[in-house]
Amino acid sequence: MFELLRTHRESKARRGRLTTAHGVIETPAFMPVGTQGSVKSVSPRELRELKAQVVLGNTYHLFVRPGLDVIRHFGGLHRFMNWDLPILTDSGGYQIFSLAKLRKITDEGVRFQNHLDGTPTFISPEIAMEIQATLGSDIAMVLDECPPWPCEHEYAARSLEMTIRWARRSKDAPHANGQLVFGIVQGATFADLRRQSAEATVQIGFDGYAIGGVSVGEPEPEMMLAVENSEPYLPADKPRYAMGLGTPPQLIELIARGVDMFDCVLPTRIARNGTAFTAAGTINLKNAEFTLDTRPIEEGCTCAACSEFARGYIRHLIKAEEILGLRLITLHNLHFYLTLMQRTRDAIDGGGFGEFRQSFVGGYKLRGDTIPA
Amino acid sequence: MFELLRTHRESKARRGRLTTAHGVIETPAFMPVGTQGSVKSVSPRELRELKAQVVLGNTYHLFVRPGLDVIRHFGGLHRFMNWDLPILTDSGGYQIFSLAKLRKITDEGVRFQNHLDGTPTFISPEIAMEIQATLGSDIAMVLDECPPWPCEHEYAARSLEMTIRWARRSKDAPHANGQLVFGIVQGATFADLRRQSAEATVQIGFDGYAIGGVSVGEPEPEMMLAVENSEPYLPADKPRYAMGLGTPPQLIELIARGVDMFDCVLPTRIARNGTAFTAAGTINLKNAEFTLDTRPIEEGCTCAACSEFARGYIRHLIKAEEILGLRLITLHNLHFYLTLMQRTRDAIDGGGFGEFRQSFVGGYKLRGDTIPA
Repeated sequence: MFELLRTHRESKARRGRLTTAHGVIETPAFMPVGTQGSVKSVSPRELRELKAQVVLGNTYHLFVRPGLDVIRHFGGLHRFMNWDLPILTDSGGYQIFSLAKLRKITDEGVRFQNHLDGTPTFISPEIAMEIQATLGSDIAMVLDECPPWPCEHEYAARSLEMTIRWARRSKDAPHANGQLVFGIVQGATFADLRRQSAEATVQIGFDGYAIGGVSVGEPEPEMMLAVENSEPYLPADKPRYAMGLGTPPQLIELIARGVDMFDCVLPTRIARNGTAFTAAGTINLKNAEFTLDTRPIEEGCTCAACSEFARGYIRHLIKAEEILGLRLITLHNLHFYLTLMQRTRDAIDGGGFGEFRQSFVGGYKLRGDTIPA
Repeated sequence: MFELLRTHRESKARRGRLTTAHGVIETPAFMPVGTQGSVKSVSPRELRELKAQVVLGNTYHLFVRPGLDVIRHFGGLHRFMNWDLPILTDSGGYQIFSLAKLRKITDEGVRFQNHLDGTPTFISPEIAMEIQATLGSDIAMVLDECPPWPCEHEYAARSLEMTIRWARRSKDAPHANGQLVFGIVQGATFADLRRQSAEATVQIGFDGYAIGGVSVGEPEPEMMLAVENSEPYLPADKPRYAMGLGTPPQLIELIARGVDMFDCVLPTRIARNGTAFTAAGTINLKNAEFTLDTRPIEEGCTCAACSEFARGYIRHLIKAEEILGLRLITLHNLHFYLTLMQRTRDAIDGGGFGEFRQSFVGGYKLRGDTIPA
């Protein structure tokens, strides 16, 4: 299912190709996040025009609303949201731990009340796989516990042992025809636990491996270490997915550390605040300096926003709280992330990833509001 | 500039063609409302795909934000919002009377504080024309006073006399090259005043005539009477525009009474509430009955929403407050209004307007939330 096409000599960067039931994903790849069955403000047609290869769906959100009966009635998530390219679904674990109320975690699974109407719910590793089978995603994730940051060694150790038991049960549970299943490496910020988690997860054997427990508020060096302490124990012939990451330079640095797949709400979320990505860093279009700016967000950019609209107009739309402003920045930001991955793939293919990494990451300026909390 | 192509024998319905600096408007025509330089949630590209012929811009809103300096810097509203087909701008009067604070009306003009930051502002008939010249609209409206409903005869009589003096000053003021200017008939619900206003406005002489002082909360029979009491005194060879109207059956009934042009926020505004227009009436997609509905909003509809998405999915988006839901219903509703006008034009051209009117208006069911307040 995964073909390793080329590796970079001076780093761990890889070019790969992951084949799923709904098509091929060229890696490194960025997956726009469609939390509730929609990438915020963007239509599937626009996603196809952006050349998105795969989108992420959030199992927890879709389970709570519209619910599985609805998705099943429509014949799965692809048909429900009219997206016929690959979908990866998370297991719901992360949202249960961050959004739901009155959680009780046992070896059996998690009891919780959903954040919308408080309905008491129980999800086990088997149920998480069953839900994702109903969603019909191309890539399903095992249920895991994602410990908070910071986290004691003892808690992280006990947690990851349960996550490994859950991973085994997830693997043994029935899943949809042709659906790939990824395991998740945990272990918080501890090198020994990352290794233990990676080795045990690989021993169970999955179609790919995610590095979880990152993007939970830890400083960037801790995040990089978590990946560096996990990656060496993952097989080269399976894709690696860093969950919930990251900024554009972080993506390049994680690719240099051997990661193939990413998802992140950053490009869609910060668009709402007027923040756009450019080659040199982020700009906030709410700033007065853009009032009379007739240039596009980025000169030379071919996205739907830059090919038709000026910064000054988009600034006006954002200030006036017009939805079109949010739409245009979202399209630009997604285009930025997706073409960044295309350029990265080209650089690895052409042997120039080292230079590309250095020229892109060096001096990339992120405004404070683009750093994930 | 206006060509009367055909009239309907049994009613006052007319087919016409209005030529403006940015192109031709086939009438009867509906103008989507782009209050702040954007038709809410819709891109200019989508408006072109919807075959919108002309959009309306609100002078008051654009004057307050982003302000004339910005619009002038960008070379006018067309270039600012990237719309190269016709634009009609109102005079700002209606919004000054409905939104602004601390208004003081004198023969000279209106003093007010804007609703955003309270900046004291003065607008006269000459200034309203100057602002619209800067916006560079294809059709400018004279400044008028729009009396509230209900309104005493004495107040309405005095008000319309001032509006007529203002109309003369508007006509005499400089306006942009090639810009058409429409006068506005007032007179509230009084037949004698409507006639007086129409005759005096026609005597000044404009490129078209609007019927104002409707869509201000009056019952539908009063609205129809206001039009019926104005229309006979308007010249056949100039377009007539009913401001701020209306529901789909109202549009057909107003066309039967000799009106050529319409603008209304209804199709975009009620989309936010989940309400969609169909041939039989409105439906609210928030209703539970649509949860498992795999049909499009309207069978056979060729709009971007109906050709790709099911009612159940759009319902989910609206319930989950996803912007795509609002976008899809807005596109459908605008498509409904614009194709309704196309069908009306075809019916008048083909001599079948009477049958079309009867079959469309008879039994059209509007939910309570679609009746304008």
